[in-house]
Amino acid sequence: MLPADGGGPLIDAGLDSAVITLPRHGLFLLQTTDFFYPLIDDPYIMGGIACANVLSDLYAMGVSQIDSVLMIIAPSSKFSDKERDVILPLLAKGFENCAKRAGTRVTGGHTGINPWCIIGGVATSVCTQDEFVMPNEAKPGDVLVLTKPLGTQVAVVCHSWLNDDNRWPKLEPVITIDAMQGAYNQAVDFMSRLNKTGAELMLQYQAHGATDVTGFGILGHAQNLAKYQKNEVSFVIDTLPVIAGIAAIGTVMTGSLNIRTGRVPETSGGLFICLDETRAHEFIREFSAKEGYEPWIIGTVCQGQRTAQIKSDATILEIA
Amino acid sequence: MLPADGGGPLIDAGLDSAVITLPRHGLFLLQTTDFFYPLIDDPYIMGGIACANVLSDLYAMGVSQIDSVLMIIAPSSKFSDKERDVILPLLAKGFENCAKRAGTRVTGGHTGINPWCIIGGVATSVCTQDEFVMPNEAKPGDVLVLTKPLGTQVAVVCHSWLNDDNRWPKLEPVITIDAMQGAYNQAVDFMSRLNKTGAELMLQYQAHGATDVTGFGILGHAQNLAKYQKNEVSFVIDTLPVIAGIAAIGTVMTGSLNIRTGRVPETSGGLFICLDETRAHEFIREFSAKEGYEPWIIGTVCQGQRTAQIKSDATILEIA
Repeated sequence: MLPADGGGPLIDAGLDSAVITLPRHGLFLLQTTDFFYPLIDDPYIMGGIACANVLSDLYAMGVSQIDSVLMIIAPSSKFSDKERDVILPLLAKGFENCAKRAGTRVTGGHTGINPWCIIGGVATSVCTQDEFVMPNEAKPGDVLVLTKPLGTQVAVVCHSWLNDDNRWPKLEPVITIDAMQGAYNQAVDFMSRLNKTGAELMLQYQAHGATDVTGFGILGHAQNLAKYQKNEVSFVIDTLPVIAGIAAIGTVMTGSLNIRTGRVPETSGGLFICLDETRAHEFIREFSAKEGYEPWIIGTVCQGQRTAQIKSDATILEIA
Repeated sequence: MLPADGGGPLIDAGLDSAVITLPRHGLFLLQTTDFFYPLIDDPYIMGGIACANVLSDLYAMGVSQIDSVLMIIAPSSKFSDKERDVILPLLAKGFENCAKRAGTRVTGGHTGINPWCIIGGVATSVCTQDEFVMPNEAKPGDVLVLTKPLGTQVAVVCHSWLNDDNRWPKLEPVITIDAMQGAYNQAVDFMSRLNKTGAELMLQYQAHGATDVTGFGILGHAQNLAKYQKNEVSFVIDTLPVIAGIAAIGTVMTGSLNIRTGRVPETSGGLFICLDETRAHEFIREFSAKEGYEPWIIGTVCQGQRTAQIKSDATILEIA
């Protein structure tokens, strides 16, 4: 299956990280690249969120020790010299400090100029076979655990409408200004968090697979993960933990802001993990002790044709 | 110097590839990332050039076996649907096929949308200490070898002026339409070539260091390489091999098109290598047997303060 003299993918691409065998060394190379256009105004915090998002693809493989991070950064060609000189160092510093929090560091990268400001990077880990979790071993009876609430991008987008006299009135019937501000603060906090604890505990509690929830929304990522399963299983999501106030926005807005669709993009979202039920409770207990909040059991793995669905009567948990 | 429990850079960043120690495995992780905005019209050839340019940073470290390539690709947000559907697959195919020519393959990556079309990637190799060449061991008496002629970007830019009634007349006194077309074809050919043979022979003939010539021009890259040398050496360049017809353009145009300045950016340029003199001749003989043309001795390493210069009376070699 694999060339004896060189690297090749161990599993099909399409999952969070490429997994490449290193036959010469009996090791595996796991890596990912991603870049983003800033979505919040504070460049230092944005740099940290971008780094957390890049690393998250490795964390979704249960990898908690990251060997190398490269940074990709480009100022907007429309920045004034002053904007560039203020924003770029803060963006880079936020990214670098986040890498340090992850116990790794930025060792290189690429700088360019682009019409839209860019921040992103590459994360790499060289692992033995017992240092990562294969993502395709979900079993019927497993439960699904989610480690961050949904609604990060909706909170950021709708928060920006506070100063928009055309748009904010649409939201006024369902969310107060204070609640909007609170949701935004929560979103920034969750986006800035690393999925490192989740990765460590995935390995410790022998997770059967995971993905991180980002641009395709929880349902998109769940479906993608389901597609790659070895066993004939499907994922049924019965609970949606959502940043407080955000779910209501879906009652007055269309598709891309309606969290119930499962298709709403997240930035630096949580890990969606398949775990044996007993181990899931141990996972949640230990995660909570380390991170200060409990992740949520949001559904189950049942026999099926490698699909994923959100039950139409799924419970919304308002996470305050 | 290095954390015992995690990776860290072996040498300062600023050279072509990050070199990270993997203390747990007794190995080294070499990697690089780069992206570009297309500079020629043919998307398939452009994809190949982009890949050759990404890989070149590893080749400059004497690494010839590349374990993983990730592709970064984004269509322009201004493309029509048809433009996108035609251009993107060709760009990707050119990139992928170039990776195959290099004996590796694309194992993942990132796709986005951007105002300017983007193509680039990440290249990684996991090596033992004897599988790459440290770039900082040049010695007085070494010679400098260059494996591709200069002038790639000048040829592409000036070729695009053939249809520009304002600009072409400025070049008419120094280059014919036929010569311009020939220079463009040569530039495309050289940019598409991999620096793989150079990398293999660098290791075989124990090169003392190298860099690849890209965005900072030959002098910029030579100065950067000089700065990182362990020994008190400087590089003196006495010969500039240039794609035929391109040097003359510098006699009628200013700075960024005047190859004699040493500051003219190249795309997917050659390797600039420090070699023991006897070994340099063996290197050139074997390179020529494999690639069908002889690389050039362009200068010497002498005692000095870690600088680089082009002699004012440097010889221009017209490479036809």
